[in-house]
Amino acid sequence: MAETESSGRRRGRRRQAQNVDKSHADAAFYHSVRNTLPRAEVLSQDQVETLHQTSLRVLEELGIRVLNDEARDLLADAGCEVRDEMMVHFPKDVVTELVSRAPGSMVWNGADGTTLDIGPDSLHFGPGSGCPNVTDTERGRRAGTLRDYIDFTQLQQHFDIIPFLGPSIEPQDVPIHERHLITAKVQLENSTKVPWVYARGTGQVLDSFEMIRIARDLSEEAFRQRIWTYTVINTNSPRQIDIPMAQGIIDFARWCQPTIITPFCLSGAMAPITETGSLTLSHAEAMAGIVLAQATNAGAPVIYGAFSSNVNMRSGAPVFGTPEHIRTNFGAGQLARHIGIPWRSATGTAGNAPDVQSAAETQLGLWGAVLGGANLIIHSAGWLEGGLTISYEKFIMDLEVCQTIAQVMKPVEATPEAIGFDAIAEVQPGGHFFDAQQTMNRYSDQFYEPLIRDWTNFGQWEEAGGIQTVEQAHTMWQQVLKDFEASALPEDRQAALDAFVDRRLKEGGAPPVD
Amino acid sequence: MAETESSGRRRGRRRQAQNVDKSHADAAFYHSVRNTLPRAEVLSQDQVETLHQTSLRVLEELGIRVLNDEARDLLADAGCEVRDEMMVHFPKDVVTELVSRAPGSMVWNGADGTTLDIGPDSLHFGPGSGCPNVTDTERGRRAGTLRDYIDFTQLQQHFDIIPFLGPSIEPQDVPIHERHLITAKVQLENSTKVPWVYARGTGQVLDSFEMIRIARDLSEEAFRQRIWTYTVINTNSPRQIDIPMAQGIIDFARWCQPTIITPFCLSGAMAPITETGSLTLSHAEAMAGIVLAQATNAGAPVIYGAFSSNVNMRSGAPVFGTPEHIRTNFGAGQLARHIGIPWRSATGTAGNAPDVQSAAETQLGLWGAVLGGANLIIHSAGWLEGGLTISYEKFIMDLEVCQTIAQVMKPVEATPEAIGFDAIAEVQPGGHFFDAQQTMNRYSDQFYEPLIRDWTNFGQWEEAGGIQTVEQAHTMWQQVLKDFEASALPEDRQAALDAFVDRRLKEGGAPPVD
Repeated sequence: MAETESSGRRRGRRRQAQNVDKSHADAAFYHSVRNTLPRAEVLSQDQVETLHQTSLRVLEELGIRVLNDEARDLLADAGCEVRDEMMVHFPKDVVTELVSRAPGSMVWNGADGTTLDIGPDSLHFGPGSGCPNVTDTERGRRAGTLRDYIDFTQLQQHFDIIPFLGPSIEPQDVPIHERHLITAKVQLENSTKVPWVYARGTGQVLDSFEMIRIARDLSEEAFRQRIWTYTVINTNSPRQIDIPMAQGIIDFARWCQPTIITPFCLSGAMAPITETGSLTLSHAEAMAGIVLAQATNAGAPVIYGAFSSNVNMRSGAPVFGTPEHIRTNFGAGQLARHIGIPWRSATGTAGNAPDVQSAAETQLGLWGAVLGGANLIIHSAGWLEGGLTISYEKFIMDLEVCQTIAQVMKPVEATPEAIGFDAIAEVQPGGHFFDAQQTMNRYSDQFYEPLIRDWTNFGQWEEAGGIQTVEQAHTMWQQVLKDFEASALPEDRQAALDAFVDRRLKEGGAPPVD
Repeated sequence: MAETESSGRRRGRRRQAQNVDKSHADAAFYHSVRNTLPRAEVLSQDQVETLHQTSLRVLEELGIRVLNDEARDLLADAGCEVRDEMMVHFPKDVVTELVSRAPGSMVWNGADGTTLDIGPDSLHFGPGSGCPNVTDTERGRRAGTLRDYIDFTQLQQHFDIIPFLGPSIEPQDVPIHERHLITAKVQLENSTKVPWVYARGTGQVLDSFEMIRIARDLSEEAFRQRIWTYTVINTNSPRQIDIPMAQGIIDFARWCQPTIITPFCLSGAMAPITETGSLTLSHAEAMAGIVLAQATNAGAPVIYGAFSSNVNMRSGAPVFGTPEHIRTNFGAGQLARHIGIPWRSATGTAGNAPDVQSAAETQLGLWGAVLGGANLIIHSAGWLEGGLTISYEKFIMDLEVCQTIAQVMKPVEATPEAIGFDAIAEVQPGGHFFDAQQTMNRYSDQFYEPLIRDWTNFGQWEEAGGIQTVEQAHTMWQQVLKDFEASALPEDRQAALDAFVDRRLKEGGAPPVD
């Protein structure tokens, strides 16, 4: 635990977070981006209805295997039919009724009154998450450690374009029964943003919820009344929900916290090879999870997850940023809007290095999600190897793209002054606008200020050493971490948090549930 | 001229072009892509009309300086008012009337009956063009040569996603008065696609037209009846059209060939610092060029060019893939559609290396043009340094992105078989679809086959040498050039082309006009 302790101590220099260069940043803007682009569609309204009805048939006629006993009981109580081998069949009217209970929007709460709207047009970029490995250009690829976990929490806190935290790294040097305690502590001590909690059994979930209550100074009642955290539930496609995943849906619904219910339907592997086939299966599985949440607690917040892409048919491995990935995102957005629930997508890459391929694939997938109208886009920054590794440098490079897309959503000014007849009249033919009055009035903040784009000319660039983007990114993340200082928790909360974690560690933590 | 001659001789091995790997390619598809995405808009319909009216005021009240005598005469004859200092004032009703004469769509003709529709929903990716320098990872950055020019012509011919040729390289080892002859010869001998012609004076233009007529076996009349080539006209923003540019508009209009009339309005430099100000100036200048074309020959094909981005306010240099660049593209598309003329945009990058920054900027700008509904997107592949250099490797890497975006436009299948209830029923919960009947029926061609994406896993990738994308691209372009074989011109046309070029070279070529 030395790493965590020292991380706690480093916050001796506690004061407001300082940033390497905050001129680009605009937390108020980045935390409330509205997607002003039109939604791309690949299905007619009739086809949307056909896919939806086919998903309902899958649930009713084929069923979902639910491995968790309590989940099957809850679903049976809600009107589903439980058959042999833990197969649950969902009557169409039960699905329709229970899905309609899920709220169409919600507000997530960070520390100090900060909020995130999650609703029809909201657009939030989440970090690359769930990676067992980590890489950077100095140390290379290795198993994720607590030190990396702390680093990525601080990087997420630093950059405003990331409005909520995600589990970028699996800290493999922390025992699995203690991991939830340590990762929750790092999040709460280093960030004011909404923390994540893994759904790995009720024991871990309740420990985590209690730590959030301590850090945010919330009664059980106050915790239940608003949203303070979230988790991601993956179904075991095709047509299966395992014990911890079902338990997570139940636990989060009981405490009125949102689950992002995300089938990971890869066309040709865990799902049909066609886009519409993958969408049909994914939609069915997502609705099954939503029904379980609503059967547990009517009105519980849930987010429709869809993360369908295809596989490389030569290896069966997932690939991203493909035409199939992009089109499936368009269709998933149509299905999410059809049932009126906020939806989460993701981007990604199968690339092995923070190079042009992985940058291109990640951006292609990102546009798929943005044009599909996803409200949360997880894995927006840092992922490599289909999520097996997160790269410090790619994290920074991808954020530049996220920021640019967010900035695109800003309106253009169309006042007479902006349209600029007077400015045009002021400059003679063949002249320039560098010192026009309009330019002088606006030059300091008219344009987006990038994070790491090098806009020197070739001669200057070469003379400065011919720095490639990945090296610039390396310099930036190191500087951010060097300068990082977390906002302090009030002393009494910090003491209570420390005491809670110490006690639970002595009690042996909480093993994950299989 | 040794280089050209040897290039001619290398085509001794004349037969149908062979490709490194044509499994990805689908010329019929890539040459007829329809943009099925919705159009992004940043202006209300009222604002579009306001910008359009302001542009008309700029033309009428402020005027455009037209340096070419014949152009001023043509404009005066059409009802414009010529004042002191070569200033031409365009009455609003004259502009409205003449712009309405321009066709709303057109067909470009390559060799052997191949055609390209250029109309409301068409989407064509053009190569990076106009670069004085060239770079590759082996030889580094250097002045462009004829050898490079030949290479890029062959690369453009090879890849179906590029449906027309562009002047990627300025071959600086070819004297300027001979360059039009040599570049036209290389294009006609190495490619069946629509060739470009630079507008650098009537002498060069007419030589080039004659060479196209020889290679395509066209009478003057047949040449005029259809479209066989194109040129790009840049205005000298703000509010000036120079002698060769105006002459190019006139020459091309007389011969019924299209000019892409493209103001290069950089916000904060040659145009107002605001997006709407840049758009207003760019729209005015484009309409001035269109009016000149229509004053020359009513109904002459023209393409509305808009290539507005912003500058780095620290250096005044153009930058690309910025939020401002993207939003301006959206607005330019609205203005082009307002006057009902096909429109051309571009992407680009200010990056100095074929690295992640330049890949990201190029793709960001590309999406701006695609979502803006551009019918032609020039500089889609290869550009670096704002067009000062073209990279062999970046050309390949960018094509992967263009191909992916084109493929996104394909419809998804929503037949019962594709939606796949039966496929879903066939696979047990927790199973997989690798050997499902639907998968077996479709696996060989369901998914896009990439050019150079490496989808091996990390271990395989590392063992194979940890190849970065740029190195893969290097291997690919070398292989394409090694295997390239042009379709032969019929012997009599080749002989006539050779004789024409020999004669014109002996006569001293044609100097460019300033």
